Amino acid sequence: MTRFVLKCIQIAVIALPLLAMRQDKPLKVIFFGDSITQAGVSPTGYITKVGEMLKAKGKDVDYELAGAGIGGNKVYDLYLRLEDDVLSKKPDVVFIYVGINDVWHKSSYGTGTDPDKYVRFYEALIRKMKAQNIRVIVCTPTVIGERNDNSNPQDGDLNLYSNLIREIATKNNLQLLDLRKQFQDYLLKNNPQNVEKGILTSDRVHLTEEGNKFLAERMLEALEQK
Amino acid sequence: MTRFVLKCIQIAVIALPLLAMRQDKPLKVIFFGDSITQAGVSPTGYITKVGEMLKAKGKDVDYELAGAGIGGNKVYDLYLRLEDDVLSKKPDVVFIYVGINDVWHKSSYGTGTDPDKYVRFYEALIRKMKAQNIRVIVCTPTVIGERNDNSNPQDGDLNLYSNLIREIATKNNLQLLDLRKQFQDYLLKNNPQNVEKGILTSDRVHLTEEGNKFLAERMLEALEQK
Amino acid sequence: MTRFVLKCIQIAVIALPLLAMRQDKPLKVIFFGDSITQAGVSPTGYITKVGEMLKAKGKDVDYELAGAGIGGNKVYDLYLRLEDDVLSKKPDVVFIYVGINDVWHKSSYGTGTDPDKYVRFYEALIRKMKAQNIRVIVCTPTVIGERNDNSNPQDGDLNLYSNLIREIATKNNLQLLDLRKQFQDYLLKNNPQNVEKGILTSDRVHLTEEGNKFLAERMLEALEQK
Amino acid sequence: MTRFVLKCIQIAVIALPLLAMRQDKPLKVIFFGDSITQAGVSPTGYITKVGEMLKAKGKDVDYELAGAGIGGNKVYDLYLRLEDDVLSKKPDVVFIYVGINDVWHKSSYGTGTDPDKYVRFYEALIRKMKAQNIRVIVCTPTVIGERNDNSNPQDGDLNLYSNLIREIATKNNLQLLDLRKQFQDYLLKNNPQNVEKGILTSDRVHLTEEGNKFLAERMLEALEQK
Repeated sequence: MTRFVLKCIQIAVIALPLLAMRQDKPLKVIFFGDSITQAGVSPTGYITKVGEMLKAKGKDVDYELAGAGIGGNKVYDLYLRLEDDVLSKKPDVVFIYVGINDVWHKSSYGTGTDPDKYVRFYEALIRKMKAQNIRVIVCTPTVIGERNDNSNPQDGDLNLYSNLIREIATKNNLQLLDLRKQFQDYLLKNNPQNVEKGILTSDRVHLTEEGNKFLAERMLEALEQK
Repeated sequence: MTRFVLKCIQIAVIALPLLAMRQDKPLKVIFFGDSITQAGVSPTGYITKVGEMLKAKGKDVDYELAGAGIGGNKVYDLYLRLEDDVLSKKPDVVFIYVGINDVWHKSSYGTGTDPDKYVRFYEALIRKMKAQNIRVIVCTPTVIGERNDNSNPQDGDLNLYSNLIREIATKNNLQLLDLRKQFQDYLLKNNPQNVEKGILTSDRVHLTEEGNKFLAERMLEALEQK
Repeated sequence: MTRFVLKCIQIAVIALPLLAMRQDKPLKVIFFGDSITQAGVSPTGYITKVGEMLKAKGKDVDYELAGAGIGGNKVYDLYLRLEDDVLSKKPDVVFIYVGINDVWHKSSYGTGTDPDKYVRFYEALIRKMKAQNIRVIVCTPTVIGERNDNSNPQDGDLNLYSNLIREIATKNNLQLLDLRKQFQDYLLKNNPQNVEKGILTSDRVHLTEEGNKFLAERMLEALEQK
Repeated sequence: MTRFVLKCIQIAVIALPLLAMRQDKPLKVIFFGDSITQAGVSPTGYITKVGEMLKAKGKDVDYELAGAGIGGNKVYDLYLRLEDDVLSKKPDVVFIYVGINDVWHKSSYGTGTDPDKYVRFYEALIRKMKAQNIRVIVCTPTVIGERNDNSNPQDGDLNLYSNLIREIATKNNLQLLDLRKQFQDYLLKNNPQNVEKGILTSDRVHLTEEGNKFLAERMLEALEQK
């Protein structure tokens, strides 16, 4: 045999198990976000619930779920810790779920994110993840207040930033998980008193048991979609 | 004749000319508001247009229109100049059209108005006008941005403050001129490109020729209603 | 003598000076302000301490102290409750101590007070109090952060609003209690590590035991001045 | 001689001085910043003036000056365009002069920069420049308002961010150009009426002729220092 053929066999010997492993290896999924995602890994959090749902379907061996959420994070905070908290973990799938603080901090600290900078850093995140062949799922920001007639103070801005993410998804050919629309549709049906909080959120932003369950279902649907 | 009958005649003698006068005297109308109303008295402004519309109907002798708008005014600015600019003029009708700066100044100066204080000062305005038997017409704030999918940054807050005015109208049994709803309905039909400005406003807030005309028609309808 | 007569004499011995005092009716003092003043009437609060200091000097009978502080209040909140909480109580002396929230709420809610409106409402307060012959003592706002090199984020604005109060005092010939200057001077001497909190305040704004004591001393000095 | 030899001599004649020049290659200096720096390259701007000052000293051949300022830029805007506008130009020296908008945009748009993020992006800039052996000179932000008693609304925040830059300079062993201190010292001497603008700035921020001259002198001093 020529050296070339030997080399090929050698590669095959190493590669075959890798290919086999690839089918067996659980899909590594990272949820990348803010305080909602930080709370997602708590016993009643949405990531924990996605795990339980997978287990109930006997599919928990196929997935390895991890949370990478930090309270107060805005899009450029994700950018600053992208390498450490996501890329170095070599995930297969990443959910990007950020935007609430980019809007909220405008009024509570004066340090929200300009729409154009939001897009710039969001696309920088995507570019670096794509370079590592990660399947990226972009999520629109959920709610700051649960009123269903667009009368929560930040509704205009949240709708605007959601439109930006929808455009980013289309432009970059990415899977969109339109959480904001799904939360709004749910609240139209399930918030007849038009209350500010207490349905999906306990405090207008962070999730109740019902909210975590609803979010987990949406995340799982998106994950299994294809 | 009894003293009572004499008294009645006496009153009638005084009252009859008063009643007659009431029919002859033009109705004094004050538009009380911010920069939109300040511009309303310019040659192409909405108050000027209401005057022209009345003239075209031959009714201009029945009304005396006056603008009392000052740029940048919020509800408590109206309160501070209520005596000088409104009560002392003895108007019959007052349109209160304020709220845009109460919302807008939150992000542009950090000095917007809390919703509960907005209501407190708004009701103080009404109380003092009612004590002078003024017919008060309350207007919801129009727009900051003309997008028709509730994605202008301040849409949530403008919807919230409009809800507050609707509640004030109901609670105080006042005529409501729901300008915000009328602008929104108009833009749903007439802003197919979902642009931010250039239809009813030149700069997202202040009115174009079309905007002044549309507003003048709504004001006139409200004035003549009853 | 019977027990009854003895008792009567005993009462008289106590009562006579009281009756004498009754002719020197105690001076009614109201502290009018925000959360710092609301906490001022607590067992360790500054108003309580002023009372204790007066007692130690045997002067507590000469004064009747009352707090009229409500958390979150800005100058126009004082204006809205002036009649109910101050004028109707017929005080002899009123301390006006407001301004921190007028500055602070700019960044935390977007609803601070414009400098010119601050002055307008402040002067409206004074006018109404003077009409009732109240001795008004105006206080500059203390601190939001205890660093002593003017590097607390709101220092510029607090210095600006303090200048406005100093001008109001001069213009209206009122007694000025320059709390901000006194806090700043104290912190220059007593904050060698240039920490943000923990000396006079527990959280950059609300007072520690030391802060309440320091403030009580300044208030008492101002009250007794003349 | 052959054409080839002639050509060689021709090249040498041109190349020799170039080689000589190569040793005395002008130092490439980039001013990296916001609108003040963008205006710095105008006929009366501070960068133009640094060039004129160098020329007057016969040193203009030793330096190649370039402006890289864009209006409205904050520290992370510099970060986003660092590669294109600075690193790819291979400068020898870079002045980083940014921070005014990081503070100012808090109140004017709600999109200022948190102090900790300011430091994170500032240090990221420095790290990338140092990796390319650039001599970095860090500047503290000048002024938003020229009053000299720390009563300009943003003085507290500007002092805070200046302290952060001073710490960055010390920690990273970088040359500090303390423009804020120099402007403050100048205004203490030259603003006896304590006006808000009109000395070094025309509008509280952007520079007058006097301001551009003063800044140019400070920049030149820093550049020649060593």
